[in-house]
Amino acid sequence: MFKKVLIANRGEIAVRIIRSLKEMGIKTVAIYSTADRESLHVQLADEAICVGGPQPGDSYLNIKNILAAAIGTGADAIHPGYGFLSENAEFAKMCTRCGLTFIGPDAETIDKMGNKEHARQTMMAHNVPVTPGSKGFITSAKEAEELADKIGYPVLLKAAAGGGGKGIRQVTKASEMADALASAQAEAKSDFGDDRMYLEKVMQNVKHIEVQIFRDSFGNTVYFPERDCSLQRNKQKVMEESPCDLISEQERAHLGEIAVNAAKAANYVNTGTIEFLMDQNHNFYFMEMNTRIQVEHTVTEMVTGVDLVKAQIQVAAGEKLPFSQADLKPKGHAIECRINAEDASNNFMPSVGKVDYLYLPIGNPGMRIDTALYQGQQISPFYDSMIAKVVAFGNTRAEAIAKMKRLLQEMVLHGITTNQQFHLTILEDPGFIKGNFTNTYLETTFLPKWKEQANETISA
Amino acid sequence: MFKKVLIANRGEIAVRIIRSLKEMGIKTVAIYSTADRESLHVQLADEAICVGGPQPGDSYLNIKNILAAAIGTGADAIHPGYGFLSENAEFAKMCTRCGLTFIGPDAETIDKMGNKEHARQTMMAHNVPVTPGSKGFITSAKEAEELADKIGYPVLLKAAAGGGGKGIRQVTKASEMADALASAQAEAKSDFGDDRMYLEKVMQNVKHIEVQIFRDSFGNTVYFPERDCSLQRNKQKVMEESPCDLISEQERAHLGEIAVNAAKAANYVNTGTIEFLMDQNHNFYFMEMNTRIQVEHTVTEMVTGVDLVKAQIQVAAGEKLPFSQADLKPKGHAIECRINAEDASNNFMPSVGKVDYLYLPIGNPGMRIDTALYQGQQISPFYDSMIAKVVAFGNTRAEAIAKMKRLLQEMVLHGITTNQQFHLTILEDPGFIKGNFTNTYLETTFLPKWKEQANETISA
Repeated sequence: MFKKVLIANRGEIAVRIIRSLKEMGIKTVAIYSTADRESLHVQLADEAICVGGPQPGDSYLNIKNILAAAIGTGADAIHPGYGFLSENAEFAKMCTRCGLTFIGPDAETIDKMGNKEHARQTMMAHNVPVTPGSKGFITSAKEAEELADKIGYPVLLKAAAGGGGKGIRQVTKASEMADALASAQAEAKSDFGDDRMYLEKVMQNVKHIEVQIFRDSFGNTVYFPERDCSLQRNKQKVMEESPCDLISEQERAHLGEIAVNAAKAANYVNTGTIEFLMDQNHNFYFMEMNTRIQVEHTVTEMVTGVDLVKAQIQVAAGEKLPFSQADLKPKGHAIECRINAEDASNNFMPSVGKVDYLYLPIGNPGMRIDTALYQGQQISPFYDSMIAKVVAFGNTRAEAIAKMKRLLQEMVLHGITTNQQFHLTILEDPGFIKGNFTNTYLETTFLPKWKEQANETISA
Repeated sequence: MFKKVLIANRGEIAVRIIRSLKEMGIKTVAIYSTADRESLHVQLADEAICVGGPQPGDSYLNIKNILAAAIGTGADAIHPGYGFLSENAEFAKMCTRCGLTFIGPDAETIDKMGNKEHARQTMMAHNVPVTPGSKGFITSAKEAEELADKIGYPVLLKAAAGGGGKGIRQVTKASEMADALASAQAEAKSDFGDDRMYLEKVMQNVKHIEVQIFRDSFGNTVYFPERDCSLQRNKQKVMEESPCDLISEQERAHLGEIAVNAAKAANYVNTGTIEFLMDQNHNFYFMEMNTRIQVEHTVTEMVTGVDLVKAQIQVAAGEKLPFSQADLKPKGHAIECRINAEDASNNFMPSVGKVDYLYLPIGNPGMRIDTALYQGQQISPFYDSMIAKVVAFGNTRAEAIAKMKRLLQEMVLHGITTNQQFHLTILEDPGFIKGNFTNTYLETTFLPKWKEQANETISA
């Protein structure tokens, strides 16, 4: 087992990883930017190294400084968390070259799954259903138009190297195709240095359903109960849950088999998540694979009792999976709310400032709040606005919702504005409570009502 | 189901009960003493009524004021928590007379089990093994001496109405008997108004093992995995865990059957705990029954996933048990540390004052901290010194210990002195880690070492 691990991340996920490492008796090295000197992950780690300035490019994406910190402190592995360098194949390769274990899949797998068109090809070759679309890269607007005519509008033009909503254009009719392609290619070229594009049909009335898989280097492969991450705003997940109550046990097993096949097809080692769209007839279509731990892994841990980060570390160290498929039946229901420092009543403007007073409702069964927050902390403008993940567990979905409401009502955060009330309003929404919402529900149905209510509050 | 419940308690257990009630959609009424105006349970409840001055007799034991508060606020049930009026048969009877549901067993059962000699008789009549001792009340020192000669010294003289270590004397030889009996009787008379005494053999090299049972009004009865509460100081539990790793699955089922028989013998409805002593050959001897929720119910919740307080409320409302025996196999291992406001390095002197800074390590799987603490709070001298219960869960006992160490290392509490370091030292103790400690281990083996270390620290 590793003796010392460097955590190449910040915020709640760095804290969460440090805590699992400590419980395993492994020494921890934090890295931080000059804006994060006082952060909790710095305080909790055994050692902490400043790797650069506040801008991510200068610190949390600064490969050379991070590797130097790892080598200088004698770390033997690096956990990348999510975001930042977690899906950077070059970083994974550099770790290996420096004799450091990258806690995640190997560089080749990250690269293969990171290229979304390549991932689609791999899945198709292994009988994993994908959304209707191009069988390779799109080379001209004319080719794109012909294909779109065949599969039906609207379609998405997507950069193969894309991510975070960049290099994507929705096209609703043939006359828009040429301009959309040119503009998406220009963005992809500038953002990713790679303007190869592919085309996908826009699936309507679908849920975002994802399946986490885990595979060890001995070939043991398992899937976890699915997560429903359909509640999204600007392609960002807002609230996630597991399992999806609409999915039967039989469908769960079938979907799990698809995901396990996909993991084997990719010769994947460690944990990853396969994102699907599910249509009204419960057909599943592969979207993409995330080759890292995800924000919403917490709900999976709540319904299975597994510590996924510990398992990541064990498998990266060459150990066998510490659980088998039989251990992973979902027990109960879990929901996660992403608490962001933002003003949901004012177009979700980011909020920064000092946390003057903080009360987190710790206690009672079936809850968890993953956060790097502490009273007195300065929230800086440089990083993602997510500051806490509130997770509620119940024997049923209704019980989990009731618990989440109680937790959000009790939580007190003064000094910055958060989306606490936005979440509370979703939890009371009949469409949410019913559970059959699609991946556009929040934006097309809930948000207009929310904005109206926010305006009323302002004018009142 | 109840519409409104009054919580006749304070501190962490009042908060814990309020939280479960809120999740069930039931309105809550807190009561408080003038010393507790700013307490968390007052802030969290929908309504709060001051029932008297700081002394427990004036407020939390003030039956008339509490019943008036319940009637005045239109509550339809009272949850007594633990301590205070929770095992007061008179209070349970008065609740019923006032048309309020007492959330617990009926007055007759509380009375029957509260009289410890009576409880012994009930158990013996139903083939539940009890510690060797008197078959009824002891009427003279001579009778006591003859019995002690037969079963062997040392023996305990115990007040039938006793509790909290009062009215108990240990007798090591016949010549001490007469004085001990007189003095215990005088204490019992003054403290409980009842000087009836019984005699028990002092069991050596035993563990304190207890089994929680639950029975609904339809006669469905289940037992929970046992708790090992052997780590005690001055007859007070310090750290509890579940299950006891020394007990096999077969023994667990056997012990569970004994406990279920005992519950049926008492015609018990709601939850209660049967305390046993376990000798080196794993024979179990009934000690007493607690007819209320216990402090350490948290570890049982962690290993079974059950919310015991919710189940108490459901069963009191006439519903069926929401789980069956098959649901209650222990999964993993849980440990609870009782964090007290006391100076463990100075003879456990209580500590009072203002909580200047508080950091509770919330987050990651498998943890829970039940507490009414918040930053800025005043800890008053009037009540029990326990201010928080830190609970850690792991797949194995070793994992739970590692997690508990991490939690206690991260927890920050400034302004008052706590026994945090005392717990951390126990967690590192080879005798604790081995797990086969008896109910005298802490006092006879650990504390002398601890005191030596504390003195060294003081002189250094």
